[in-house]
Amino acid sequence: MGKIRRIQLKSKKYVPLPGTSPGSVQLYEGSLKPKITAYSYGSSACHSEELKSFSELDQHFKNHPTLTHWIDIRGIGDLTLYDYLEKKFKVHKLVLEDIANIQQRPKIDEYDDYLFAVSRMLYVDSELEIENEQISFLLFPKVLFSFQENYIDTVDPVIHRLKLGKGNIRTGGTSFMLYSLMDIIVDNYFTLIYRLGDELETIEELLYRKPDKTLMYQTQSIKRAMIMIRRAVWPERDKINDMIRSDSKLIHKQTKTFLKDTYDHCMQVIDLVESYKDLTTSLIDMNLSFISNRMNEIMKVLTIISSIFIPLTFIAGVYGMNFAYQDPETGKILEHNMPELYSENGYLYTMGVMCLIAVIQMIYFWRKGWLSNR
Amino acid sequence: MGKIRRIQLKSKKYVPLPGTSPGSVQLYEGSLKPKITAYSYGSSACHSEELKSFSELDQHFKNHPTLTHWIDIRGIGDLTLYDYLEKKFKVHKLVLEDIANIQQRPKIDEYDDYLFAVSRMLYVDSELEIENEQISFLLFPKVLFSFQENYIDTVDPVIHRLKLGKGNIRTGGTSFMLYSLMDIIVDNYFTLIYRLGDELETIEELLYRKPDKTLMYQTQSIKRAMIMIRRAVWPERDKINDMIRSDSKLIHKQTKTFLKDTYDHCMQVIDLVESYKDLTTSLIDMNLSFISNRMNEIMKVLTIISSIFIPLTFIAGVYGMNFAYQDPETGKILEHNMPELYSENGYLYTMGVMCLIAVIQMIYFWRKGWLSNR
Amino acid sequence: MGKIRRIQLKSKKYVPLPGTSPGSVQLYEGSLKPKITAYSYGSSACHSEELKSFSELDQHFKNHPTLTHWIDIRGIGDLTLYDYLEKKFKVHKLVLEDIANIQQRPKIDEYDDYLFAVSRMLYVDSELEIENEQISFLLFPKVLFSFQENYIDTVDPVIHRLKLGKGNIRTGGTSFMLYSLMDIIVDNYFTLIYRLGDELETIEELLYRKPDKTLMYQTQSIKRAMIMIRRAVWPERDKINDMIRSDSKLIHKQTKTFLKDTYDHCMQVIDLVESYKDLTTSLIDMNLSFISNRMNEIMKVLTIISSIFIPLTFIAGVYGMNFAYQDPETGKILEHNMPELYSENGYLYTMGVMCLIAVIQMIYFWRKGWLSNR
Amino acid sequence: MGKIRRIQLKSKKYVPLPGTSPGSVQLYEGSLKPKITAYSYGSSACHSEELKSFSELDQHFKNHPTLTHWIDIRGIGDLTLYDYLEKKFKVHKLVLEDIANIQQRPKIDEYDDYLFAVSRMLYVDSELEIENEQISFLLFPKVLFSFQENYIDTVDPVIHRLKLGKGNIRTGGTSFMLYSLMDIIVDNYFTLIYRLGDELETIEELLYRKPDKTLMYQTQSIKRAMIMIRRAVWPERDKINDMIRSDSKLIHKQTKTFLKDTYDHCMQVIDLVESYKDLTTSLIDMNLSFISNRMNEIMKVLTIISSIFIPLTFIAGVYGMNFAYQDPETGKILEHNMPELYSENGYLYTMGVMCLIAVIQMIYFWRKGWLSNR
Amino acid sequence: MGKIRRIQLKSKKYVPLPGTSPGSVQLYEGSLKPKITAYSYGSSACHSEELKSFSELDQHFKNHPTLTHWIDIRGIGDLTLYDYLEKKFKVHKLVLEDIANIQQRPKIDEYDDYLFAVSRMLYVDSELEIENEQISFLLFPKVLFSFQENYIDTVDPVIHRLKLGKGNIRTGGTSFMLYSLMDIIVDNYFTLIYRLGDELETIEELLYRKPDKTLMYQTQSIKRAMIMIRRAVWPERDKINDMIRSDSKLIHKQTKTFLKDTYDHCMQVIDLVESYKDLTTSLIDMNLSFISNRMNEIMKVLTIISSIFIPLTFIAGVYGMNFAYQDPETGKILEHNMPELYSENGYLYTMGVMCLIAVIQMIYFWRKGWLSNR
Repeated sequence: MGKIRRIQLKSKKYVPLPGTSPGSVQLYEGSLKPKITAYSYGSSACHSEELKSFSELDQHFKNHPTLTHWIDIRGIGDLTLYDYLEKKFKVHKLVLEDIANIQQRPKIDEYDDYLFAVSRMLYVDSELEIENEQISFLLFPKVLFSFQENYIDTVDPVIHRLKLGKGNIRTGGTSFMLYSLMDIIVDNYFTLIYRLGDELETIEELLYRKPDKTLMYQTQSIKRAMIMIRRAVWPERDKINDMIRSDSKLIHKQTKTFLKDTYDHCMQVIDLVESYKDLTTSLIDMNLSFISNRMNEIMKVLTIISSIFIPLTFIAGVYGMNFAYQDPETGKILEHNMPELYSENGYLYTMGVMCLIAVIQMIYFWRKGWLSNR
Repeated sequence: MGKIRRIQLKSKKYVPLPGTSPGSVQLYEGSLKPKITAYSYGSSACHSEELKSFSELDQHFKNHPTLTHWIDIRGIGDLTLYDYLEKKFKVHKLVLEDIANIQQRPKIDEYDDYLFAVSRMLYVDSELEIENEQISFLLFPKVLFSFQENYIDTVDPVIHRLKLGKGNIRTGGTSFMLYSLMDIIVDNYFTLIYRLGDELETIEELLYRKPDKTLMYQTQSIKRAMIMIRRAVWPERDKINDMIRSDSKLIHKQTKTFLKDTYDHCMQVIDLVESYKDLTTSLIDMNLSFISNRMNEIMKVLTIISSIFIPLTFIAGVYGMNFAYQDPETGKILEHNMPELYSENGYLYTMGVMCLIAVIQMIYFWRKGWLSNR
Repeated sequence: MGKIRRIQLKSKKYVPLPGTSPGSVQLYEGSLKPKITAYSYGSSACHSEELKSFSELDQHFKNHPTLTHWIDIRGIGDLTLYDYLEKKFKVHKLVLEDIANIQQRPKIDEYDDYLFAVSRMLYVDSELEIENEQISFLLFPKVLFSFQENYIDTVDPVIHRLKLGKGNIRTGGTSFMLYSLMDIIVDNYFTLIYRLGDELETIEELLYRKPDKTLMYQTQSIKRAMIMIRRAVWPERDKINDMIRSDSKLIHKQTKTFLKDTYDHCMQVIDLVESYKDLTTSLIDMNLSFISNRMNEIMKVLTIISSIFIPLTFIAGVYGMNFAYQDPETGKILEHNMPELYSENGYLYTMGVMCLIAVIQMIYFWRKGWLSNR
Repeated sequence: MGKIRRIQLKSKKYVPLPGTSPGSVQLYEGSLKPKITAYSYGSSACHSEELKSFSELDQHFKNHPTLTHWIDIRGIGDLTLYDYLEKKFKVHKLVLEDIANIQQRPKIDEYDDYLFAVSRMLYVDSELEIENEQISFLLFPKVLFSFQENYIDTVDPVIHRLKLGKGNIRTGGTSFMLYSLMDIIVDNYFTLIYRLGDELETIEELLYRKPDKTLMYQTQSIKRAMIMIRRAVWPERDKINDMIRSDSKLIHKQTKTFLKDTYDHCMQVIDLVESYKDLTTSLIDMNLSFISNRMNEIMKVLTIISSIFIPLTFIAGVYGMNFAYQDPETGKILEHNMPELYSENGYLYTMGVMCLIAVIQMIYFWRKGWLSNR
Repeated sequence: MGKIRRIQLKSKKYVPLPGTSPGSVQLYEGSLKPKITAYSYGSSACHSEELKSFSELDQHFKNHPTLTHWIDIRGIGDLTLYDYLEKKFKVHKLVLEDIANIQQRPKIDEYDDYLFAVSRMLYVDSELEIENEQISFLLFPKVLFSFQENYIDTVDPVIHRLKLGKGNIRTGGTSFMLYSLMDIIVDNYFTLIYRLGDELETIEELLYRKPDKTLMYQTQSIKRAMIMIRRAVWPERDKINDMIRSDSKLIHKQTKTFLKDTYDHCMQVIDLVESYKDLTTSLIDMNLSFISNRMNEIMKVLTIISSIFIPLTFIAGVYGMNFAYQDPETGKILEHNMPELYSENGYLYTMGVMCLIAVIQMIYFWRKGWLSNR
């Protein structure tokens, strides 16, 4: 079980400049050059082709006129991409801006000829940071575009299924492909949540054994991750609901049955997130009560030791006083000045009284329950 | 009452693999082989038969063509089950996946020929863990399938009533049987909640007598159980509401009157859960205030003892100083060097002053109310 | 003002057995034998009669064929009651079960020939426990049945008004009688809330004067009572709203105007309950801050006394050291060994320094504000 | 800024007796005799007349048959008022009860011939208590009655405007007059909130300078006042919304435009109240953290002084031990018994070691940051 | 990173006088004289002109009869402004009052000939105070008025775009200009939030390194700023939604597509605000737990040092007692009086025992984990 590494949230990258004309595309710092892969498929065929530029796309569509196309674009840092979409596909400027502005919430926007959809991909990267990336989709009757921020391979199982021809994937049209991609994104939420959930359970166990300041930080950062996931899933759910209720011809009736399934998955994700968020709150409460308990423990040790020895030290101090037995000048015996010091066994009696005091106090503390380790 | 055992929540078992084709059945680890019992009944007849395989079902239906059938399947770890349902009953792939994926929320899905329903069974098992199991139903006009995760006998009272022929159970058709099963599941929530509620009351009593760290853990785990029950009951309520408002011919009007009763039970469960959840919050607050109070108590003991004896020890220390009475070389009397030590009754006066200080402090503390045990 | 007794919530009595057939009546432990009083009234007449058994009811109805009847039944622990209702009035089994199951939430169920309503009566009994009892109603065109759990006399003012013939009560039909009973039940909520509110104000005053652990318990139990009242009033409000919007002919239009008034009362109760619940939360917060303040006070006493006397005791300790003035063997004067002890007025100087240290510390603490009692 | 006086909430006065017949008027204790002023106005005329009894009203109406009347009644403690309204204006009994029962929530009730409205007036009286009074209105086509609890002059600016003839007030009919009165009541909420807000800001400043237990009480009572205002404004907003959407002919269309303005004011009040409520919560949190910080400060002083002097006192104690240099009987030199005491400069070395220990500890505490005042 | 300056909220300036006639304009204290700039533009032309008084406006409109006009008014402290609008544009009195009363919530009011809209501009001014200013708009078919409180240049990028003729700005009519202004205001929210967010992250880092009381204040004031932003954005969102759903001909269909984009931006702002508000709550919680942890640390130092030295001091005190070896009068040897003092190596043994006690205690504390710095 051992060490727990702190999972961090990666922070935002895209700061829009106020005052730019609405609909003007603005590439974020560090955006990647697009890698374009075109998949063209029908019930009996499936071609994939890596393209070097968008100008090759027209030729590609001409080559496979009867097939359905999925253009998988990874990296959105190239203005020719937006030019191409605007000119060839008459995509609205605001849509292009939203593809480039990577802080969209999940949503579905219906236009006359196409649908524009946004999802958020959440995953833990190799440096243990939780990435929150945007993937957006343009759904045309025969063509689906997907735009990923990075080169990561979250949706590769769909490509695998497409090549194998499993399920309805080749015959469902572009809307089924869109569904398949959204579905795998939601499935990945489970992976992330279970991972965080496992960490939480480890933290809980460690907490019972030995509370620790760093465990507090861990819990707080997992709580924040849960809040971030919730912020992604609620609008995702609304988006899928909008798609199910949509009148658009672009979404086939058969696909809607499958979307209901994804909707249920979203609800399960929300349930899990809420459960784990409650758990983090419990853990933080528990941690605070542990801190208070430890304080009590420390105070008890101090109080027991001080309470026993301070009175004894006082008694020792009394018999350390130098009251004289004789007046040094007159030699007169000062009878009441500390006769105990000169009595036989005075020392023994004093030690006995001290022991008695200590024993009485121990009994008092034992009855208070302070000697047991609670 | 004595010892309280910690009731634990059993944790999840089914982790879906992202990327599997939607609608593909995936058995969870540790799933059990199905035990199949077929009940066929009418107003005057009731046959029950244990079947060894799904292939025997067809023959069974043929044997009792006029009767209503309830196929009670316990254990869902067999792929032939899903094959059978898909081929003979044309059940949708997504439904089959949901039967196998045991983390569904309660819901009702209407298809053209059948209804698919999911409930959650909650109970405390023999090892004091709270199980949260899925039971799903397929409702056809003449046949009802129920699919339990485990072999537990929660629904056996329904079988008993069926055999006795009590109430409307034999004449109400499959939808009444579905209602009966759902109703007993909701009734079991009461059993669980009252059990947890009794534990809470024991904890509360113990807390008043002697606060304890383990009581805190108990309360937290009961709170979590309450949250878990709430997560099961709210969608259960929505599901029953959906059934009441459904237009489907599969749910008889007469059954809906009974479903309203179950709906009321769900509301009662929700009320109880909220009450107990509030109670756990109160107990945790109370516990924190107890910890603070104890700290005060400890501090008071320390303060009283230190405050009384530290000044006395100082006085004793003063008269333990070795200021000389005579200059050792010149023999000159140093008049102002601690004449008290050589005065008659100096010791008695000093002891008197010490007692006076102690008494004044005791009065001060008594007036502050620190000596009483609050 | 003096002593405050702890108001307690009485706990549940009815635990349903899972698995009993829906609609089967189950008497709770300790249920009372019914006392039946039949009131028959019209604009100019009002007869009341105590009946010994339900069989006498038929005769009673025959005796007064033109009058309106209210059958006031207190105590529901007799199965003949349910038999009678089922046979003579064709009451649905589920309704009978709800009359016997005393944990219903307030609700109104409409059936073809009658309405079934449930209210909750809340009052403080003679042992200072808050009772939460069920009263249910069956509303027929000419007959109203009311079923109380116990023999308490909450609704007696209505009987008084009925006998006096005040207001619309004799001419309003059964629905007005139902309204009158519900109205008096809601009015009783005010009595209970004001009583709890007065206790809260007493607690608040005591808290300002002298915080106390038992005040905390009081506040917590009043908070719980408030939550319990809220749980009763919200569905009560919904029920009355349902009655106002109902199409049933059984509820006269004229009665609905009055029900709106009761609805307003429910809203006032809810406002009061929320106010007092907020107040309890404030008091609990305040109590916690008092505990912390007391801790500060205790710590200040300890710190002031320790800080002043520990350094002084150290100085006294220094001059209590036995460093020799002469080497005992050689008789050589060890000049640097504690010459202060042999200087003239060394004792006085030392005492002066001690006083100075104490005074400086007092000034420091006074400027910190630790000497004032805040 | 100096002293802050504690603003208090005045507590309830009207406790309804359960069991009184619905619609029976019950005067609250301390209710005032009515002062009646009749205002009769048209586009070019405005008469005001103080009346001694309700019987004079009929004559008044006859004197000004074409004018609009506003009857301003302050004090509601006279049963002839209710008799008059019931007989001459056919006002429903429940309305009369609501006028007398001064704990109504803001609401609007529509009857066939008239509207009944309730508002709450909130203001700080001369003894710095926040009054929460009821003002109710009866709106007829040509007559508006207003019923105030007390003789206060909150609505006098409206009278002033009426006499001046400013704005639409003389030509808008009774509904505009009703609007004017409601508007001034809502405007007064601002006055109250800004006053409380100013107090809060003073409290905040004082809190930063010197936290204090009484500041906590202040904050709590302002928080409660805010909650009370919120309880009045939300239903006020709903009431105004109901009036805007009402179909009643009694409310002119032109008036509704103005009511929308009042609606916006209500929303602003709600925003302000929520802001200040959040601020009180922040202040209470801050106060708790101040208390904890002070505790830390106190503990630091104690710990620093104890930690430095306790070890030094121990060393002094060691050299105060009386281990003998010679065996008193045999005169044998006990070489290992405290030779330090007889070494040259033993005292100086010891004092040096003590200083060293103190300095090391000071450095330790300084590096811990305990010596700075944070 | 260094020093963090405290961002403050600027407080309100406009306190309405209760009792003023509704619809009467009241200038707030410190309101500025208007600076009027008229922009007249069409697809191919764009004139801008600074006007000295409102009387020049008529001439301006005549000069450019076919163009669209945007009248940009900064500073609203001149009554001639309101006169002009009332007389020439027949603007409703209540609208004029709302333009002058700078505490409106964002809203859109539809009148027959024009729309009235309010937005809130939020920005950090040169003195690091967050300004919350009102900007209101009057939308006529060919003329748009905008009214700013101050002379700030938030909307200047729109003027820049207008002059350049970029985008749809010159051809979209007045509603597109209104959209452009609203859009830039919402974009400015991002700037403010990211600025506050950066401060929060700095605070968080500092908090982990060295918790500090001033960090707490910072966090609280950022939390309050977040709450203030939320109060502005929610009604802003509702306003934009109202505009999208409005039937008014004044808002072009094409503009609505763009408004949807602004709506999405509002949702993103809300998400960010909620995230940061959660973060502030976490930080405050964390800070409290740090304070408690520090207390534990302080207490541990005190306890360790006291626990070790108090018993040792007691032992030293015992051997500092002056029990006599001989009876001073009789010279009788008192055998049991402290023989240790006269035993060979008594001192060494005592020191050894002391060391042993100290070592045992150190081991105890080390095993408790108190010596490590957690």
